[in-house]
Amino acid sequence: MKARVTIMPKNGVLDPQGKAIGHALEGLGFSGVAEVRAGKVIELELAETDPAKAQAAAEDMARRLLANTVIESFRVELA
Amino acid sequence: MKARVTIMPKNGVLDPQGKAIGHALEGLGFSGVAEVRAGKVIELELAETDPAKAQAAAEDMARRLLANTVIESFRVELA
Repeated sequence: MKARVTIMPKNGVLDPQGKAIGHALEGLGFSGVAEVRAGKVIELELAETDPAKAQAAAEDMARRLLANTVIESFRVELA
Repeated sequence: MKARVTIMPKNGVLDPQGKAIGHALEGLGFSGVAEVRAGKVIELELAETDPAKAQAAAEDMARRLLANTVIESFRVELA
């Protein structure tokens, strides 16, 4: 089954990539963009068919490799 | 209102970052990971309050700056 891990910088953590995107959008004439946060999304195709086990495996992967939990939070969705 | 733009490499486009993550997961002992695709997610806080206009603005931003539509596809969700 498919798992999607979304990784975002934690609130309060500086996000220079998001800031740069915000400035670039402003430069292109887009107004009314208050805040931009840039994160990652990783889609995993897992052999596991049990949703609970797939969720647990994806969370374990996120904690151990995909996310830096000091500065990033993650969320796992199954599809 | 909040808009989330999810950007993924198109099917058939090589995804070296995803491949690298797949190999690293295997190296950590995670088995049963068939495919990994790595993409970006950009959260925008928009001043616009009309959902249709916010959706259109976010799609325009994605087309003009956030995504490289030659090799990436994008999806906008409002929250």
